Amino acid sequence: MRIVVIGGVAGGMSAAARARRLDEDAEIVVFERGDHPSFANCGLPYYVSGEITEREDLLVQTPQSLRETLDIDVRVRHEVVAVDPHAKTVAVRSDGGEETVTYDALVLSPGAKAVRPPLPGLDSPRVQTLRTVGDAVTLRERIDRGARRAVVLGAGFIGLEAAEGLRMQGLAVDVVELAPHVLPPLEREIAWHVAAELRALGITVHDGVGATAIEPGDREDLVVLSDGTAIAADAVVLSVGVTPDTDVFADAGVQCERGAIVVDQHGRTSVKDIWAVGDAVLSTDRVTGLRRPAPLAGPANRAGRLVADHILTPGTARPIPHPVGTAIVRAGSLTAALTGANRAALEAAGIDYHTVHLHPDDHAGYFPGAERIHLLVHVRAADGLILGAQAVGRAGVDKRIDVLATAIANRMTGPDLIDLDLAYAPPFGSAKDPVNLAGMIIENVLRGDLELWYADQSDEPGHLLLDVRGPDEFAEDHLPGALLVPHGEVRERLDEIRTAAAGRGIRVYCASGKRSYLAYRILRAAGLSAANLSGGLLTLRSTVPAAPAPIRLVNPSL
Amino acid sequence: MRIVVIGGVAGGMSAAARARRLDEDAEIVVFERGDHPSFANCGLPYYVSGEITEREDLLVQTPQSLRETLDIDVRVRHEVVAVDPHAKTVAVRSDGGEETVTYDALVLSPGAKAVRPPLPGLDSPRVQTLRTVGDAVTLRERIDRGARRAVVLGAGFIGLEAAEGLRMQGLAVDVVELAPHVLPPLEREIAWHVAAELRALGITVHDGVGATAIEPGDREDLVVLSDGTAIAADAVVLSVGVTPDTDVFADAGVQCERGAIVVDQHGRTSVKDIWAVGDAVLSTDRVTGLRRPAPLAGPANRAGRLVADHILTPGTARPIPHPVGTAIVRAGSLTAALTGANRAALEAAGIDYHTVHLHPDDHAGYFPGAERIHLLVHVRAADGLILGAQAVGRAGVDKRIDVLATAIANRMTGPDLIDLDLAYAPPFGSAKDPVNLAGMIIENVLRGDLELWYADQSDEPGHLLLDVRGPDEFAEDHLPGALLVPHGEVRERLDEIRTAAAGRGIRVYCASGKRSYLAYRILRAAGLSAANLSGGLLTLRSTVPAAPAPIRLVNPSL
Repeated sequence: MRIVVIGGVAGGMSAAARARRLDEDAEIVVFERGDHPSFANCGLPYYVSGEITEREDLLVQTPQSLRETLDIDVRVRHEVVAVDPHAKTVAVRSDGGEETVTYDALVLSPGAKAVRPPLPGLDSPRVQTLRTVGDAVTLRERIDRGARRAVVLGAGFIGLEAAEGLRMQGLAVDVVELAPHVLPPLEREIAWHVAAELRALGITVHDGVGATAIEPGDREDLVVLSDGTAIAADAVVLSVGVTPDTDVFADAGVQCERGAIVVDQHGRTSVKDIWAVGDAVLSTDRVTGLRRPAPLAGPANRAGRLVADHILTPGTARPIPHPVGTAIVRAGSLTAALTGANRAALEAAGIDYHTVHLHPDDHAGYFPGAERIHLLVHVRAADGLILGAQAVGRAGVDKRIDVLATAIANRMTGPDLIDLDLAYAPPFGSAKDPVNLAGMIIENVLRGDLELWYADQSDEPGHLLLDVRGPDEFAEDHLPGALLVPHGEVRERLDEIRTAAAGRGIRVYCASGKRSYLAYRILRAAGLSAANLSGGLLTLRSTVPAAPAPIRLVNPSL
Repeated sequence: MRIVVIGGVAGGMSAAARARRLDEDAEIVVFERGDHPSFANCGLPYYVSGEITEREDLLVQTPQSLRETLDIDVRVRHEVVAVDPHAKTVAVRSDGGEETVTYDALVLSPGAKAVRPPLPGLDSPRVQTLRTVGDAVTLRERIDRGARRAVVLGAGFIGLEAAEGLRMQGLAVDVVELAPHVLPPLEREIAWHVAAELRALGITVHDGVGATAIEPGDREDLVVLSDGTAIAADAVVLSVGVTPDTDVFADAGVQCERGAIVVDQHGRTSVKDIWAVGDAVLSTDRVTGLRRPAPLAGPANRAGRLVADHILTPGTARPIPHPVGTAIVRAGSLTAALTGANRAALEAAGIDYHTVHLHPDDHAGYFPGAERIHLLVHVRAADGLILGAQAVGRAGVDKRIDVLATAIANRMTGPDLIDLDLAYAPPFGSAKDPVNLAGMIIENVLRGDLELWYADQSDEPGHLLLDVRGPDEFAEDHLPGALLVPHGEVRERLDEIRTAAAGRGIRVYCASGKRSYLAYRILRAAGLSAANLSGGLLTLRSTVPAAPAPIRLVNPSL
């Protein structure tokens, strides 16, 4: 049996390697049009930054090592230019000319290609992508030859990693993002912290702005933005997205949808004996059911392995799971991560949801070095099913998002999170872990014991705003017109609050939502109409900033 | 309504605080026989170490703060000495004499007391426990007065934390553990790394040895061990376990089993209107069904909250979950953690299981600072249900154990772990996370694609031992009689291997089990009887050490 794999790296090489482990006799051929069958594509920005010092460290496997350990025939710089599903052949072009190779099973793993917007000047030699080892080497060479100013077009995950890497190399860096904020998949109250961190690193962030032209010059290019800004740059990194690279296969009759290959639960395309995996494949989102490519390394590796299972042991192969969409990025000293659906996806799918915000410490507050995590969780309004979660902070973000990704995979509800037995000792967490606390807040909302109001409602009239922090915090920053009653005084000053409300609903807030929850319960028990600000001023000031600079909150202990 | 809570800290204070949030009108009284209603009991060893500098940092809440924020009537140094369930009263003794207090609902949260073995000399004033703020202050005072040598009796979690804290303060420290290894709940191949780390910190570990006497002296005591060793000490910390503190309640007719209070799923005891939570309560282990107390902070907090729910909103209160038993400890630069059942519990419960071992990096190996995690997972032989997991390493241990704890809570099988979408970027993980990799190994075992042999079988005769590492690694350390065939040469040297086996089964090994798995697949495809060493020499040398000191393995890259 001959298995032909088109495209190496995550999906293709996982399929090829698993096929060999299952079948010692199969002939396994991989055609990779690039220079390397298996490289650390997620590591490229860290080669730019200089954290990964050696180019060789980016090469996970070589054709020689794959031949030796797995007896796989890897042919790099070989591009498949046509597929004939009837003859079961592929036409392959290389420096040696064109040849036709037969297959018994064909695995398509072509990946995606960079989106190139119709931008005048985009073909300037100073503009490049960051998708291959060659791209990373080129960018490092620009730095080594003295590049001083870089512009990164696109503030997605890879764009931001590239921007930080260039900044670490001492370049002046501008990041341009057409969406209203950096890292568009993140909610703005999470992304706000990342933008602040980028600015603290000395990176200039242009959000809600597009590039309109690149004007090549002798010594540098000018990147012109839609707000009229013109930025001089001797290196421009294009990172505005990717699109499946599937024309050859569509031409061969493989069914595609918006350019992405349609597959069944075992990775089979519409054409017999052809499977497909990776960034070029259409996925069904686990949470929303929306169909779109999920260009992530983990799902690609997993699908590659399962496709090999289905080719060689079809009777026992498990289905390829629908991706949950978990992703993470380092930004300076911060980590930002998300799993599951965000607001945009939930609204696109028409799912009613609640969001809860909290700001717990990553470990016990009495143990040195505790760092605040900004965490939000979306749950289905009907039953509390966890739909998505996002977090940003200096420590412990990855752990909580991985637990929540596991919760989503198991269709847990918010209250189920309360019951998780997570590892606790003071250096690692709290007896009530941030994940448990999120569950408690969600349960209170579902039980009707907690009504929330949200930061984007802060301008709505007709409510008494009640600030239950301390006088020092109030003096530092408060919402216009708010009445100050520290939470420990709410019981004894109920009459004063009732009078001030004058029949209006009371919108309570504190720094994080914790003290104001205690106050809220007292108000409700007294028969007053009240709601508690989700995430408190910490969330509000990252949603509706009072000023461009981050607000310093005085000792927000709760 | 008057709710009386006996005992503060985790379980009792959680019940009291939740009760107030649910009912503003209830009268809530807490009797705490100690000095503090709510203190950081898990933080005490870190006050000993000096990492927590201020005694006040150990006090989470005070009677004053609880009165102010939650209107709870906390009475410290008040000991309940009798309960009359018919009159619904408790008798309380304090400096002010004895009083009788009525209750509508009574919550028992007495906790556990230190086990005091029948050891001559145990009443020496140099012997103390580490259970209260007062204990921690006393121990710090001993250090400040010039204590030089400490002996810790018991190498459980708290004992080891105390030993490390004392060592950080510059004392000579000996740890004595009757069980065969430190941290008895951990498997020996995990605990071995902790013992090595303790020795590297300069702590002397005596395992498999008990204390037989403490001989008080003028300037120091002598701690005499069962192997004849005598250790001079000016501070002795007793930490050999705890036992429920329930005599008063048993006398009142509350049903107990081996001293622990029996409760139903809502925390109700056998006596009407009396609930119980915390370390004094009998739990049913989620995995094994074994009944025993689970003295952990997380489950106690959770049960306290749910008991308040059941007292005040019985129609909607969720049942108290059976604990999974997740725990974690820092030991020097290492973290060790476990969740679910260990071998001893599985064998006590008569459950057939497989164990897989692996040693993945905590994050992508090509990104700087990757650290190896030693991970094992127990799964049910019949269906792969995850029963327990343990890990030790310098980074990322807590995250993987929390994900696996969440997996156990959701009754996931090993193969389900493959499908988890965990957060991947090079600083945080790998495209195939250690948890995913564990799932792949388990799936291979369940499919029959991988037969394992284990470190404790290394002395069994009748097999060909096949070492598939490189010659340099072989020269450094190998199993007696092993044949060396590097894994890349196995295909071409099959005849030689077949001849050497001479009809015997082949036991393959490498450093971690990864290269040997590739070799194993080739041998099996060639029709040979083979098995692969679970976890490779890295596991074997932590199970069956060749020498007392850790073995240095030369560059075990796979």
